[in-house]
Amino acid sequence: MEKPPTIKDVASLAKVHAATASRALNPQTRGKVSTRTANRVLEAAKSLGYAPNSAARSLRTKTSSVAGVIIPDLRNPVFPPIVRGIEDGLREAGYMALMGNTDGDEERERELLLAMRGRQTDGFILATGRRNDPTPADHVPTVLVNRRTDSSDIPSVTNDNNAGVYSAVQLLASLGHTRIGHVAGPQELSTGWERYRAFVDAMASHGLEVDPGRVVFSTAFTEEAGYRAAVELQRDVTAVIAGNDLIALGCYSALDEHGLSCPDDVSVVGFNDMPFADKQRPGLTTIRIPHYEMGLEAARLLLERIANPTTPAKRVILPVELIRRGSVAPKGS
Amino acid sequence: MEKPPTIKDVASLAKVHAATASRALNPQTRGKVSTRTANRVLEAAKSLGYAPNSAARSLRTKTSSVAGVIIPDLRNPVFPPIVRGIEDGLREAGYMALMGNTDGDEERERELLLAMRGRQTDGFILATGRRNDPTPADHVPTVLVNRRTDSSDIPSVTNDNNAGVYSAVQLLASLGHTRIGHVAGPQELSTGWERYRAFVDAMASHGLEVDPGRVVFSTAFTEEAGYRAAVELQRDVTAVIAGNDLIALGCYSALDEHGLSCPDDVSVVGFNDMPFADKQRPGLTTIRIPHYEMGLEAARLLLERIANPTTPAKRVILPVELIRRGSVAPKGS
Repeated sequence: MEKPPTIKDVASLAKVHAATASRALNPQTRGKVSTRTANRVLEAAKSLGYAPNSAARSLRTKTSSVAGVIIPDLRNPVFPPIVRGIEDGLREAGYMALMGNTDGDEERERELLLAMRGRQTDGFILATGRRNDPTPADHVPTVLVNRRTDSSDIPSVTNDNNAGVYSAVQLLASLGHTRIGHVAGPQELSTGWERYRAFVDAMASHGLEVDPGRVVFSTAFTEEAGYRAAVELQRDVTAVIAGNDLIALGCYSALDEHGLSCPDDVSVVGFNDMPFADKQRPGLTTIRIPHYEMGLEAARLLLERIANPTTPAKRVILPVELIRRGSVAPKGS
Repeated sequence: MEKPPTIKDVASLAKVHAATASRALNPQTRGKVSTRTANRVLEAAKSLGYAPNSAARSLRTKTSSVAGVIIPDLRNPVFPPIVRGIEDGLREAGYMALMGNTDGDEERERELLLAMRGRQTDGFILATGRRNDPTPADHVPTVLVNRRTDSSDIPSVTNDNNAGVYSAVQLLASLGHTRIGHVAGPQELSTGWERYRAFVDAMASHGLEVDPGRVVFSTAFTEEAGYRAAVELQRDVTAVIAGNDLIALGCYSALDEHGLSCPDDVSVVGFNDMPFADKQRPGLTTIRIPHYEMGLEAARLLLERIANPTTPAKRVILPVELIRRGSVAPKGS
């Protein structure tokens, strides 16, 4: 097999010393050579397909320009657009993402963190945060996205869960619904917890009672777990707010199972506006979170943190928007 | 900030020499120390959160245990399950995936390849292959997934596009359709090209005529491009086979626009069985490709190639399955 080109090959083609070529190729030392020489070296590197060896540079400068991105499961449709935003945000600064999935397994997450640190990762973006997670062993800058911990010493980018649930309750109340149920997400995750708390608060703000039989808890943010929780809901509800869109799809199945129709018998509201929420039958009314922008923002926060590890841990909360589709109707229509 | 633990810290806690600790931590030299000592060192490393420095090891052994994975766009729903399969396959061998999106831009792809090579990537899995792509500068093992090049010198994992399209034509013919149209995918991609060729062949096998006005070409595998192509289809078709599921959704919109209904006026068949194809209105009849398994297989092929770069370039073609849903009906029903 052909050998990859070396710095010597580049220097030789550009007719300069290897040390000069090296200075020209490193953005931090490029100013030490003339623009003309720098351009000649860059041209030579490009024509040879020379790839500067980041592993060697990484040892010298202690940065690898790689960030670890850990999510529960890429197959949950909420994550691909977030991850895409992260990658585009990292790219602006010449960073790349090393990816890992945990399936919600904490042991697996620890393994991934260790393995990524072993590959000289400069920082982490985690979409796997649990409310009670300890602050990570603080050698490596870390940012949480979508979910956060209860303590506020890790920077995070999340959504306005309160405003989102409030607008859902407001819509349903305005349509005459009073017996509104909630299929909450897992309470060890900030998303599940904040939305449940927001539901209780918003119901109170609208003078509506929260009957304990009308609130059930899903063990996971999945369609299956949502279905298993939703079939346990007290049957007198005329509207349900689901912890997220996948749980809302589980509610659709539970209604089917009970011979009830959405929205004629029961209105359903989700959370996230995941891809294809509009294509469901009926189209899902939901709270749109800015997936891509969350990822972008998380990447920028991480880069800021890498550049300046002692800055205070910022919390960024992005606005959400109620998207009304066919899954809600006036009560008793 | 606290400093990350070093090998000396581990050795000191385990009460051994640094050289012994180093041998114990490296799987390749672990046999040189006693099991008891090795376990003491591993315990110490774990309790300190010591991360062996792969960048240093990477320079010594020239392997980084990182593979570059380049796809068009993670937001196309066909890719997340493939990528998840790739990651799980890589993980079996202690590898991780460095991710990049090209949006179909060849210049961007070249940049990504260079940047990843600069990070000591051991190999690449590309879901971005074009039929006429040159064999990559062959320092780094490469495997193509989903799409392949016309030349067969790069290993690839693809689907049985012929059998898939054949079964779609067979179903439609059995339902009495004769004026079957095709909204083909981009012809510079093997998926678009192979399915178009398979369409022509399968129509001939069934004694059906391919009217040129009933075949149009979409410029991309997206809903929008599919819509723009589908509105140009000759209006006498009673069934359409789309290049993929997103193009099929574009066909749904085009039918809407023309005041036609699916499946009463026109049957539609997609390709891929992407997530949520079953949730469309109507549920999309399509050809299911084994997304996750393709990713898994591509990872294994790459690992094989890394271990033994001179093995012949294998082509793996995975079987597909016709999934019938509400989008097809007998002709004139």
